[in-house]
Amino acid sequence: MSVVTIERKVLEKNDELALQNRKVFQQHGLFVVNMVSSPGSGKTSILERTLEHVKNKIRVAVIEGDVQTDFDAQRVATFGVPVVQILTNGGCHLDAKLVQDALSHIDLKGVQLLVIENVGNLVCPANYDLGEHVKVVVASTTEGDDKPLKYPAMFRNASVLLINKIDLLPYVNCNLAELKTNAFKINPKLNVFETSCTTLEGIAEWCHWLEKQVSGK
Amino acid sequence: MSVVTIERKVLEKNDELALQNRKVFQQHGLFVVNMVSSPGSGKTSILERTLEHVKNKIRVAVIEGDVQTDFDAQRVATFGVPVVQILTNGGCHLDAKLVQDALSHIDLKGVQLLVIENVGNLVCPANYDLGEHVKVVVASTTEGDDKPLKYPAMFRNASVLLINKIDLLPYVNCNLAELKTNAFKINPKLNVFETSCTTLEGIAEWCHWLEKQVSGK
Repeated sequence: MSVVTIERKVLEKNDELALQNRKVFQQHGLFVVNMVSSPGSGKTSILERTLEHVKNKIRVAVIEGDVQTDFDAQRVATFGVPVVQILTNGGCHLDAKLVQDALSHIDLKGVQLLVIENVGNLVCPANYDLGEHVKVVVASTTEGDDKPLKYPAMFRNASVLLINKIDLLPYVNCNLAELKTNAFKINPKLNVFETSCTTLEGIAEWCHWLEKQVSGK
Repeated sequence: MSVVTIERKVLEKNDELALQNRKVFQQHGLFVVNMVSSPGSGKTSILERTLEHVKNKIRVAVIEGDVQTDFDAQRVATFGVPVVQILTNGGCHLDAKLVQDALSHIDLKGVQLLVIENVGNLVCPANYDLGEHVKVVVASTTEGDDKPLKYPAMFRNASVLLINKIDLLPYVNCNLAELKTNAFKINPKLNVFETSCTTLEGIAEWCHWLEKQVSGK
């Protein structure tokens, strides 16, 4: 069976296009974040809280990736930022080509931060470079503390881990120390923030980190 | 690009092997469940509670699918049932071939129910028939109420929806009625159970349904 070879070719082609995206981002002095997680970990909620926090400091644009529906793009659009929806129609991840196509629908002039919200999937998006500067993986406390070990590629390839729904810790079977230990086992360089979109815990710290990256461009 | 054609060939080959698996299951009078969900929705916890509930009534075997680690297989093995671990090593779903290989490691004689716990992924496993009788999709309340619309293929192909972590409803942003409405929009034939592995709510009802399917074989 030649599937492995084909997969390699697909990834090589993707890497070429990601390089092209990277050059576009560089030309515009953009900082680009690829947000990844399981379905329902709170990527869109974190993005909403982030937009509230940085909207007077940073000019942001958003690319929303979904299998179906434009619910997330609608939520983000209420913050008055440019947003483009990519529908994968069953596809399990964004790739560099889809992002390239989406970029042609955004006026990047003046934009400082581009957030790409990937399809909710803790496996496939790990392998597809979109040209981003950092992958930010969101893992919610409700998912338990073993996910970094069970889905290592995503945590290995990420620069930031947002441990979300931290307010639900008293109610769920998740040992926070164990979750962090497991994450650092896979990737000792992870920047970790504990966040809640309900209590806003950790949102300012995460946004401060993000602002520093943007101003460093 | 010929990826679509190749994907179709992969799926056709998978369907052939699923048919072979189905014949094996039929020969042994087995009822076979394919459990699917996002990472951390509680598939393994539900399986544990199910095994506790049915262990004196039904002879069960389990195939555990994971990207990495045999944590889930270890958890299930403590219930004294035969269990085989499949590691996909980065692969995002089980397929009929992996299940066929796993079957060669289980003595199916006398087994009445085979539970296959798929990789945590709400996208890719929807398309891969393993030869099972039913797909059971687990969606936890912590993931919100929009998931059936955002990941429709999985809910369309499932026969049962377990709405899990129902005990966390007071703490999370999930409208239970809306979640059910969304699920029935995608698949009006879904059998829905509301479950909690903490309070055991709904576990008896779900097990009763399962026992009926097994005795109907």
